[in-house]
Amino acid sequence: MRAVSRRPDPSEAPRVDPLLDVREKRRGKRIGDAYVRRVRSFDDPFQRGGDEGELVATERTVLERRGWRAALRGVRTALIGRPIHTDREEHERLTKVKGLAIFSSDNISSSAYGPEEIMRVLALAGTGALTLTLPLAGLITVMLAIVTVSYRQTIKAYPRGASSYIVASDNLGSTMGVLAAAALLIGYVVTVAVSVSAGVAAMTSILPQIYDARVWIGVALVLLIMLGNLRGIRESGTIFMIPTYAYIVVMLAIIGYGVARVTFGDVPEFAPPTGWEPVEQGAQALGLFLILRAFSQGAVALTGVEAISDGVPAFKPPEWKNARTTLTWAAIVFATLFVGIAFLLTRLGIQPDGSEQYTVLSLLVRTLTGEGAILVVAQVATALILVLAANTSFADFPRLSSFLARDGFLPRQFAFRGERLAFTTGIVALSLMAIGLLVGFSASVSGLIPLYTLGVFIAFTLSQAGMLVRWWRRHEPGWRRGLVINGLGALTTAVVALVVGSSNFLQGSWLVIVLVPLLMLLLLAIHGHYRDMDRALALDRIPAREEVAPRPIVIVPISRLDRPARQAIAFANSISTDAVAVHVTNDPDAADALRERWPAWAGTTELVVVESPYRALIGPLLAYMDALQRQAPERPILVVLAEFVPRHWWENLLHNQTALRLKLRLFTRRNTIVADVPYHPPRE
Amino acid sequence: MRAVSRRPDPSEAPRVDPLLDVREKRRGKRIGDAYVRRVRSFDDPFQRGGDEGELVATERTVLERRGWRAALRGVRTALIGRPIHTDREEHERLTKVKGLAIFSSDNISSSAYGPEEIMRVLALAGTGALTLTLPLAGLITVMLAIVTVSYRQTIKAYPRGASSYIVASDNLGSTMGVLAAAALLIGYVVTVAVSVSAGVAAMTSILPQIYDARVWIGVALVLLIMLGNLRGIRESGTIFMIPTYAYIVVMLAIIGYGVARVTFGDVPEFAPPTGWEPVEQGAQALGLFLILRAFSQGAVALTGVEAISDGVPAFKPPEWKNARTTLTWAAIVFATLFVGIAFLLTRLGIQPDGSEQYTVLSLLVRTLTGEGAILVVAQVATALILVLAANTSFADFPRLSSFLARDGFLPRQFAFRGERLAFTTGIVALSLMAIGLLVGFSASVSGLIPLYTLGVFIAFTLSQAGMLVRWWRRHEPGWRRGLVINGLGALTTAVVALVVGSSNFLQGSWLVIVLVPLLMLLLLAIHGHYRDMDRALALDRIPAREEVAPRPIVIVPISRLDRPARQAIAFANSISTDAVAVHVTNDPDAADALRERWPAWAGTTELVVVESPYRALIGPLLAYMDALQRQAPERPILVVLAEFVPRHWWENLLHNQTALRLKLRLFTRRNTIVADVPYHPPRE
Repeated sequence: MRAVSRRPDPSEAPRVDPLLDVREKRRGKRIGDAYVRRVRSFDDPFQRGGDEGELVATERTVLERRGWRAALRGVRTALIGRPIHTDREEHERLTKVKGLAIFSSDNISSSAYGPEEIMRVLALAGTGALTLTLPLAGLITVMLAIVTVSYRQTIKAYPRGASSYIVASDNLGSTMGVLAAAALLIGYVVTVAVSVSAGVAAMTSILPQIYDARVWIGVALVLLIMLGNLRGIRESGTIFMIPTYAYIVVMLAIIGYGVARVTFGDVPEFAPPTGWEPVEQGAQALGLFLILRAFSQGAVALTGVEAISDGVPAFKPPEWKNARTTLTWAAIVFATLFVGIAFLLTRLGIQPDGSEQYTVLSLLVRTLTGEGAILVVAQVATALILVLAANTSFADFPRLSSFLARDGFLPRQFAFRGERLAFTTGIVALSLMAIGLLVGFSASVSGLIPLYTLGVFIAFTLSQAGMLVRWWRRHEPGWRRGLVINGLGALTTAVVALVVGSSNFLQGSWLVIVLVPLLMLLLLAIHGHYRDMDRALALDRIPAREEVAPRPIVIVPISRLDRPARQAIAFANSISTDAVAVHVTNDPDAADALRERWPAWAGTTELVVVESPYRALIGPLLAYMDALQRQAPERPILVVLAEFVPRHWWENLLHNQTALRLKLRLFTRRNTIVADVPYHPPRE
Repeated sequence: MRAVSRRPDPSEAPRVDPLLDVREKRRGKRIGDAYVRRVRSFDDPFQRGGDEGELVATERTVLERRGWRAALRGVRTALIGRPIHTDREEHERLTKVKGLAIFSSDNISSSAYGPEEIMRVLALAGTGALTLTLPLAGLITVMLAIVTVSYRQTIKAYPRGASSYIVASDNLGSTMGVLAAAALLIGYVVTVAVSVSAGVAAMTSILPQIYDARVWIGVALVLLIMLGNLRGIRESGTIFMIPTYAYIVVMLAIIGYGVARVTFGDVPEFAPPTGWEPVEQGAQALGLFLILRAFSQGAVALTGVEAISDGVPAFKPPEWKNARTTLTWAAIVFATLFVGIAFLLTRLGIQPDGSEQYTVLSLLVRTLTGEGAILVVAQVATALILVLAANTSFADFPRLSSFLARDGFLPRQFAFRGERLAFTTGIVALSLMAIGLLVGFSASVSGLIPLYTLGVFIAFTLSQAGMLVRWWRRHEPGWRRGLVINGLGALTTAVVALVVGSSNFLQGSWLVIVLVPLLMLLLLAIHGHYRDMDRALALDRIPAREEVAPRPIVIVPISRLDRPARQAIAFANSISTDAVAVHVTNDPDAADALRERWPAWAGTTELVVVESPYRALIGPLLAYMDALQRQAPERPILVVLAEFVPRHWWENLLHNQTALRLKLRLFTRRNTIVADVPYHPPRE
């Protein structure tokens, strides 16, 4: 029963034009001008591209769906909108006023929780220690000044974006760059968790009854910000100016009012509201270690500096000048708020709330203005700027991870812009990790802060150190001055990193000390893998003899005589003259019956029955393929699998299990190609 | 850039002999005698089968594995042994002595926990109510007599296996058969959980220090029985006689000793051991409802009758006579033990242990013989027979589920005999469900019993009702007598089912009342699906014109120029004269560069670039395929996918994600075939 050659004459089948030129040909027209082709609508879902052999897909190719996919698409459109054309990407540049609002929200919003975190540590040594709040705030402001001056240099040197990843990679080598990137990525995740937690805390201060739901409110906020960013919120929207300036104005007014009252000797008394509890006091002695811890908690205020450096290219030209000015102004505004709030807190004798329902900032405003409209306005403004600060990380994290993906340190999905031009994978990854932190730390700002500062200061130090190396190597004009400034900056940030890492070690910075190197190793491992693979797969041209491979040996495993098997055999015969059907069986009697019916059923296609007395299917089939392969080692084996496509997904549990296992095994077999021939039952 | 025909001449590639006849041909020999062919070793992993075109796989095809698969195989062989040839299936027949040991372990072992369960319910009305234990045990024995006589008829009528599923299907239609099967399947799962729990309780009675680990000991026992059954333990092993007869002998001796002492007025006093606590007493009044509940708990003693009926064909001929005799003896032995134990328990005033560390049986033996060797022997024998009773379900459940799979009510895997000739899927499914019950009910016999009895009695009732219908329809000799006997049996079991279902409703039988119909519906749904599918797929012969399908339209989606892409293109060219490479891109500049390098890289294969300004890949590709399909609706589209096979499984996370999503979409597209061309990087 040897097969005869029965391939159909190729001329029998209708020709297909891969450039979809059919209608044009029918009308006997050919348009020679490429420009005309480009704009003319051709086959509806496609337009002709600018070059020979090029088509451009229209929105229809993305939107057209049937059945449940159409429903899914409807939900998706409702949530994040219709797909956006690549050409519509906006490149609006920011004025300094807008830039301040958008990039410094992270920094300025720290004034809402920074003083509180200092006080919570100091209070461990008793309420008397709280007087140290103001000096520590002053010290942090000095640090901020040093870092700001130092970063002004960096911004000038890297006008196309001064991310620590770029600066460190450029000057210290890619390993240090990846270390900075790992520290930053973790920092961004914590930023989201901290900012959202602090925003929720601002709300629970005026609505204590929502305190028990704080974790879920935080999660909902993160999901909301995620959705907004998946929609592709423009950073430049004027609407984003409101929270920042509202917070600045309201806080400056309250601080001014408070300072005025203090100056004129009208100091109101701190009267704790219902539910307020004193924190556990006097648990520790007021030693250097405790002061360092308090400083570490407050140093969180410096973490926002990176955002402006990252965003330099988004400013109006001259970009670096505008960015520098904005950075300076952000630092001045922050310092004013931070020191002002710290001053009033100590002067009015406000103590943190042990039950964590009230923020000290809300207690300050309450003490000054009572429980009226001003308190509500202040808290709403605080919550809004904190949510905006979280939103800043939703711009930074996906952008940094897309840089990393572009450079091969993260999977390529991170560099892929989704339908709304947003980096979908980065946005979703950031949201999930931030939600994990929120839930894991019960949305407690104090719990999260120790994780926050260290990562950012590692990145700062690497960035400044990179600048040092750069000045030293280049000897550009003013290099001596630059060396001193960035040297001081690097020293400051390194000292802060050390203080933060050691003083908060048990409170949580150990987690960062473990995670940052692990993440760095992961990024480097991914990079190594992509590099190896690119080397192994690269190919300048196909050697002439390899353009056409040897004819495959075609086998069709069949389990019974049915329509799917018939379809698979017909396909095999359409591409091969000597395809063989293989029936592996543990039932010789059934096999005999099948063999008897075979000629009537399958015509001249050859059938091989493999009896499997150990009842295994895959082992004998693989061994059979090996035996065939030994006869013609250079010919690939094409395994044609008939698969039944059920009407409902759950029916897959009743089918194709064996085919699935077989495919998994064949995937790793060399010189093997698997063709799936799905059989769709006729619609009823 | 139209492609020219460049298919290689088929004569170029070396021919392959699908029957592996190559070496024979080279030596110029052809052996005509089919018998000689059958036994001659041919290509090592295969022998020539008895018919033309048939090969027989040897053990090598199952055992040969490389790398981690070889290690896995090693573990597997150590655990369950080497594969067994189909021909080696044993059909040893059982004598009555062996049959009693094996099939009645389930029934007889109930005497170990049946009286205890009655007492635990009665004790709720105070210790005075415990005197009702003996009358209830007597009533249950009468029920057992009725059921036994009734089943003697069934066994005679169904000498090839009197499973309730078969009897009910045969006489009441397949829906009732499936109902009986669902009830039995659930009953078998509970049998395993109850028997193992009771076995563990027998051990904790002499080793109270293992009480806290009882759930994990139970789980370990189930896994051990599972492994044993996956190895393919023969039911007929003489070793299985030991536990049953040891239990019978030991218990009869103890009962005899106890009755003798009672008779001669030497009644020992019940002295509770350390750790024993009285049960909560007097919580309920001694009403009819409580008595019915106590009866229901004790009715568990009747559940083992099904096992012998199931196993009729395993007896030596005359099968039905031997099975009947065995059934009768089992009932007599059980009744003696059950009533004897109940008598001594009430006479000695033994009370159940509120802490559940001591079984009442162990308290009885302890009271009679002290804490010496006899107690240990009795408890070990009890534990062993209970484990053997669990093992009975490991024979029954997989056998019943293989019947159901054969008839299309369960997925086909349940009918597949694994490498050791055991029904692997059924054994594993039973183990997992039993472990779930053990953990869920903390291995508490009292907690599990309410789930146990109802399912079995539903099956009993359906089986007896089936016999009634059978007598009525056939009017065979003796039909009137049969009608009366099976009528009484059906009535008895129906009443017990009602009593058990209603009196234990809140204690757990509601779960069975919910689960049995659900399982029945599931079985019927699976059956309906298989039936529909068989109808849709059946085909008597391939119509002549369909033996060869129209040539496929071949497209090769490529993302970049690399070795996997080259390999895929070479394969496409080997089976088609007009394969087209398709590059979907969101980066027109990169596409231009690719197009420039194309002729040098890919020779004459045509390239189509599809620009995707919405950055989607799958949508435009599907739309492109639709456009091609419109040109030639009858030609299938063959999508050739290049896939990179990484060296390590985790590297798959970095590759093939898009290919995977594409394949899932293409699987449901009509007239579409997907060929996977895996690229294996060269070994270093």
